[in-house]
Amino acid sequence: MRENKLKTLWKNGGVAVNGWLGIPSSASAESMARCGWDSVVVDMQHGLVDYTDAVPMLQAISQTEATPMVRVPWNMPDIIMKSLDAGAYGIVCPMINTPAECEEFIQNCRYAPRGRRSFGPIRAVMYGGSDYWKYANETILTIAMIETQQALDNLDAILKVPGLDSIYVGPSDLGLSLGFQPGPDPTTPKVAEAIKFIVDTAKQHKIPAGIHCAAPAWAREMIGLGYQLVTLGNDNSLMMGAARAAIAATREGAAAPAQKPGSLY
Amino acid sequence: MRENKLKTLWKNGGVAVNGWLGIPSSASAESMARCGWDSVVVDMQHGLVDYTDAVPMLQAISQTEATPMVRVPWNMPDIIMKSLDAGAYGIVCPMINTPAECEEFIQNCRYAPRGRRSFGPIRAVMYGGSDYWKYANETILTIAMIETQQALDNLDAILKVPGLDSIYVGPSDLGLSLGFQPGPDPTTPKVAEAIKFIVDTAKQHKIPAGIHCAAPAWAREMIGLGYQLVTLGNDNSLMMGAARAAIAATREGAAAPAQKPGSLY
Amino acid sequence: MRENKLKTLWKNGGVAVNGWLGIPSSASAESMARCGWDSVVVDMQHGLVDYTDAVPMLQAISQTEATPMVRVPWNMPDIIMKSLDAGAYGIVCPMINTPAECEEFIQNCRYAPRGRRSFGPIRAVMYGGSDYWKYANETILTIAMIETQQALDNLDAILKVPGLDSIYVGPSDLGLSLGFQPGPDPTTPKVAEAIKFIVDTAKQHKIPAGIHCAAPAWAREMIGLGYQLVTLGNDNSLMMGAARAAIAATREGAAAPAQKPGSLY
Amino acid sequence: MRENKLKTLWKNGGVAVNGWLGIPSSASAESMARCGWDSVVVDMQHGLVDYTDAVPMLQAISQTEATPMVRVPWNMPDIIMKSLDAGAYGIVCPMINTPAECEEFIQNCRYAPRGRRSFGPIRAVMYGGSDYWKYANETILTIAMIETQQALDNLDAILKVPGLDSIYVGPSDLGLSLGFQPGPDPTTPKVAEAIKFIVDTAKQHKIPAGIHCAAPAWAREMIGLGYQLVTLGNDNSLMMGAARAAIAATREGAAAPAQKPGSLY
Amino acid sequence: MRENKLKTLWKNGGVAVNGWLGIPSSASAESMARCGWDSVVVDMQHGLVDYTDAVPMLQAISQTEATPMVRVPWNMPDIIMKSLDAGAYGIVCPMINTPAECEEFIQNCRYAPRGRRSFGPIRAVMYGGSDYWKYANETILTIAMIETQQALDNLDAILKVPGLDSIYVGPSDLGLSLGFQPGPDPTTPKVAEAIKFIVDTAKQHKIPAGIHCAAPAWAREMIGLGYQLVTLGNDNSLMMGAARAAIAATREGAAAPAQKPGSLY
Amino acid sequence: MRENKLKTLWKNGGVAVNGWLGIPSSASAESMARCGWDSVVVDMQHGLVDYTDAVPMLQAISQTEATPMVRVPWNMPDIIMKSLDAGAYGIVCPMINTPAECEEFIQNCRYAPRGRRSFGPIRAVMYGGSDYWKYANETILTIAMIETQQALDNLDAILKVPGLDSIYVGPSDLGLSLGFQPGPDPTTPKVAEAIKFIVDTAKQHKIPAGIHCAAPAWAREMIGLGYQLVTLGNDNSLMMGAARAAIAATREGAAAPAQKPGSLY
Repeated sequence: MRENKLKTLWKNGGVAVNGWLGIPSSASAESMARCGWDSVVVDMQHGLVDYTDAVPMLQAISQTEATPMVRVPWNMPDIIMKSLDAGAYGIVCPMINTPAECEEFIQNCRYAPRGRRSFGPIRAVMYGGSDYWKYANETILTIAMIETQQALDNLDAILKVPGLDSIYVGPSDLGLSLGFQPGPDPTTPKVAEAIKFIVDTAKQHKIPAGIHCAAPAWAREMIGLGYQLVTLGNDNSLMMGAARAAIAATREGAAAPAQKPGSLY
Repeated sequence: MRENKLKTLWKNGGVAVNGWLGIPSSASAESMARCGWDSVVVDMQHGLVDYTDAVPMLQAISQTEATPMVRVPWNMPDIIMKSLDAGAYGIVCPMINTPAECEEFIQNCRYAPRGRRSFGPIRAVMYGGSDYWKYANETILTIAMIETQQALDNLDAILKVPGLDSIYVGPSDLGLSLGFQPGPDPTTPKVAEAIKFIVDTAKQHKIPAGIHCAAPAWAREMIGLGYQLVTLGNDNSLMMGAARAAIAATREGAAAPAQKPGSLY
Repeated sequence: MRENKLKTLWKNGGVAVNGWLGIPSSASAESMARCGWDSVVVDMQHGLVDYTDAVPMLQAISQTEATPMVRVPWNMPDIIMKSLDAGAYGIVCPMINTPAECEEFIQNCRYAPRGRRSFGPIRAVMYGGSDYWKYANETILTIAMIETQQALDNLDAILKVPGLDSIYVGPSDLGLSLGFQPGPDPTTPKVAEAIKFIVDTAKQHKIPAGIHCAAPAWAREMIGLGYQLVTLGNDNSLMMGAARAAIAATREGAAAPAQKPGSLY
Repeated sequence: MRENKLKTLWKNGGVAVNGWLGIPSSASAESMARCGWDSVVVDMQHGLVDYTDAVPMLQAISQTEATPMVRVPWNMPDIIMKSLDAGAYGIVCPMINTPAECEEFIQNCRYAPRGRRSFGPIRAVMYGGSDYWKYANETILTIAMIETQQALDNLDAILKVPGLDSIYVGPSDLGLSLGFQPGPDPTTPKVAEAIKFIVDTAKQHKIPAGIHCAAPAWAREMIGLGYQLVTLGNDNSLMMGAARAAIAATREGAAAPAQKPGSLY
Repeated sequence: MRENKLKTLWKNGGVAVNGWLGIPSSASAESMARCGWDSVVVDMQHGLVDYTDAVPMLQAISQTEATPMVRVPWNMPDIIMKSLDAGAYGIVCPMINTPAECEEFIQNCRYAPRGRRSFGPIRAVMYGGSDYWKYANETILTIAMIETQQALDNLDAILKVPGLDSIYVGPSDLGLSLGFQPGPDPTTPKVAEAIKFIVDTAKQHKIPAGIHCAAPAWAREMIGLGYQLVTLGNDNSLMMGAARAAIAATREGAAAPAQKPGSLY
Repeated sequence: MRENKLKTLWKNGGVAVNGWLGIPSSASAESMARCGWDSVVVDMQHGLVDYTDAVPMLQAISQTEATPMVRVPWNMPDIIMKSLDAGAYGIVCPMINTPAECEEFIQNCRYAPRGRRSFGPIRAVMYGGSDYWKYANETILTIAMIETQQALDNLDAILKVPGLDSIYVGPSDLGLSLGFQPGPDPTTPKVAEAIKFIVDTAKQHKIPAGIHCAAPAWAREMIGLGYQLVTLGNDNSLMMGAARAAIAATREGAAAPAQKPGSLY
């Protein structure tokens, strides 16, 4: 079975720079995947992407060295299993707030005896190889999103669920849940503290943690905290940021204004 | 944040004439949205529409004055949140039969602390404005469908769920549930009685009620009863009704036969 | 090979009531095709339909008794041959103004030795039958649009081109070409005269003529003149006409206003 | 309402040869449906098919004599009801492991009073007929997949759930669940024994059973055991098998190698 | 008819900053159109966009203040007329090298008596208004690309063709034609000279000229030369440029490297 | 620039086994491309494929070792250049009957100074590499179809056109043009003779010739004659052939009947 490079990178203590795809197009997916990301995530939750769009996007990404992953819209067996069958090498699952939810998530991702994933890896064998059935459980990454107060309260128990490979922080939802305005790269002390708490706790469990970032500077801070995967905005926010900067530079003749390459969410 | 015109209309005691879209095409969606409806609903339940189709339909509608809404296929967090992120200004949710189901529905539509909606309004900020995060909870309409005997029994409790903005009657399912043949514009006494009971009860809670109609005459009756939103068939039934009438008028040379602009469902 | 019912109808002196599809959706195509039309035309010229949309539309139509046809965007070999391979049983070709253009059109539609159509009826054999190759030249309808002053001048010569099965009048373009405002069901004497001239000339050549209409009343007039195919608006205009009428009847409580079931084009 | 030919076939003690569609295309769906299958299943679980793709596939199939069915990705009301509204004449539901799950499945497929299916058969009335509402509950097939040890343990109770029309064996998942390698046409004694147990138990309940096969020889064995529906691989595995055989025969000049027309899943 | 803001801007001596869309998605089209461009061009020549994609892109753009235009793949009547019917307010046509080609281009864009455009503005009336037929010829922009030595030789004659509204320089093709490497923002003296020659000649004919640019600095130079429309790369190059810069800034910790917001073509 | 493996194979005297794609789906395209073909052709002429479908198909193919090519629907600049920009490494062009047509074909495929191809290889640089502009003219294959009596008459002159890389025989059209029934693997002496004549003449010009075949046995004969590329049916015919064989073997219990892996065209 084809190696999961992101897993190997993490095993070696490396940090992944991760791309995020919210535009439902295999054309933009290929363009993004060719930019040098270690991994890319097709976002079926907040991106404008549904399964019909995701399949050719995964095919387009699979031409490149970037590890293809999917963020599913919710912790549900149908879309998790469909995404895996289509060749996703990792599933990012939103709103894992309790160990029971995490257990259900893992079971949706794993074949028996560990889980209840149904067998039929129609495209996954093409990307992964004919021995996919044998190594899938240990190769595919399960990544639970930690993004509420409840998840913070249960963090230790969640991290103990067997088969959980990684966690991922959604700062906007985390901020909202803690009572603050949503937004990227939060500096509110309580939120910042939670972000530090999450990675510290994960390290105790030897589980690599990732986080959604906007500005490279903030991503570097997160790496400094110990995060091993940083996402930089998404296709849409990068495009819009660059477009607005170029328009402003042309209209105003000023130097390209300091552009925050990432948007509100 | 952009005003929700339907909400304003209701606040002023007005009645909305609502269009319904079951054809999965942004072309027909734009045509319908330009006909003068106060609001239009992309029907992801009984229409042949899935999320991949719904996104360009919502974009097409957003060119016009009609308030864009979505009927989701079921009370589930994934599709409700995806529809909201795509810019729906109202969610019509089928089969709300108990206050617990209604509470779950509201939570799927609202950000913390009221609900569990995850943050990432990728297109919603484009349609709604950059302060969307702040006003979404009070701007987006939650519309629960009342269409079973069980819902009638629980109506009072359902209407008390905080955050419920409106209810909507599906006469076919209501008829079926009460033991009669499904169909539009029902005149069976027991169903008619239920339809009156629903709007009367809603009025006691100061909650505007809507109903699916076929013929304009029946819609006017419903307005007479106090309904503040009436849907007139759907894109498909209007097209087929007009086509059949035009064919008959051409073939038979008769005056266009009295055409019931709406179909069985 | 499956019979071409429209051809048979014409042979027996019958008149076809024809539907017109401009919405790029197999869902609306099926709905229209089930309304009782003798034939339906997928409009790749002024409809919002391209080949990717047309294929499933033709499949949807092929469930019904209506003869499936395509209006191509221009007299070009690529799209004419692709439409035929996809199973169209007739091609309506715009802007045939000279016998040379007509000859080219026929050659695009016919296999050797009559024409230059390339062989590969991938879906056409499924709809037509395995002996398609043998009978296609005599079964598939070639329908040239007559819609300019130049075409009027050359009408006799155009009608003499071997293999031409029918002609079709586009009243809006004809009106424009003669110096008047475009629009359906024209009553301007010069345009009306041309419309009569066309059908009279066609009759002399024993070639059935068709015409695009909006109102059934006008279609009946055209049948009176001898036209053997009348189109009634299109999917979009029928839908919008019905929607506007239903809205008005609901809002104003008036009887459904006299509705012209067809739009400007 | 249009007859369900598969149901009639079973009633007469016949055996259905069933096609399986995992390629999300109405073009390949039509090609497959025209090959002579008694029924075909659009696979929304392990196929690369989502609802947006399934609608034109069902339209394409409906041109033919094959009974159109859908395998849904999971036992969920949204996709089951949407598939039925789009005209599926049977639902294959994966992972029915308990009578409670089976009961929920049946309720998702049936109108009141038996179930909770919501009314709006937008395309189903086109395929089924205008009295669809009346006969749908007794015409549409409900087919529960038996594919785990737990389902074996509960088989008797599952088969007693009123309204269950048929069961269907997924040998790969069954093998996995029993502790063996997944794969088609299993000969492992314990799995083979389970396969025999299932059909024998079903016969006691007079419920026809089906099974997924790869090689025709194995399908014939299954028919010998009493299975009344056998699926032969899927569109994708048939195409790939034939392609590989043709390439090998061309390259090696050998006779076409014995080809196993079906793949791993 | 809705005003053509780009035409008005030019009439007032203004300069348009123009966006360019090569990603076939209505989602990215909306995002780009909301960035503040004066106009945006859907690129059906070198973009990965075909007509099926272009229709919802034009709908998405039409929500905004940006003037929607299309670059057609070649000077052909079918796609030019289809693009106009879909609501394009300007056509950019590649490779206009002679006055005869320019005349043909204009005829493809204009209704009789000036041209041969066929009448059927199915979506154009929705965007433009019901008097579209009357004002289209004077409202829709015709923009001929000047990008070869032959075009330079014929520039004067091309600019005299009645109905030509603007010209547009493709620097890569121009460079290739003059014998140099293709690429954006060329500084090769011979190419730079040609670029100056073009705008100077256009000014003599009082025809506004546009040019494809990559860097804002170069666009400002072009404005200095008198160009009245400057395009800044395209959606794809802006996205990739921003992604690569963000990755580099994260990996290397360096300041975001000087990014050339535009790619090779 | 990425090597063109097919060109290299031919240079070394090798024979290519070529796959053919008529199903408009990136899913089936990937499946086919993974079967071991040396090259695959996306058929935009007789396949049900348009440009919108072709782009993700080319992306899917590009994951594999098979050289991606496109058969265009006709010798036209728009679709040839669009296909090249999308990453096709070879263009198969139907109906090249004269040296003038061949010259026009070559010019559509080549950048200046050899041709008139416009510059903008948006996806081609991703597949080919950033020096694409420099080596494209010598890397991309131009393959002219020889399939009429006229082409036979002009064969020598056609083969002399500079820049022509290969020719390709369409036996069905050739048969039709010579006055026989179309069909694969023709044995009619006059057609067989022409097929031999073509490859012999090509050899004199040192130009590799290819031919469309159905049965592997016939393909081997063609290789024996000196053909250096043989196509084996297409995705659709392979799938249908295998499906029919499997159904027959199941129903009749006979050995799988001798199956002709390819259909009429």
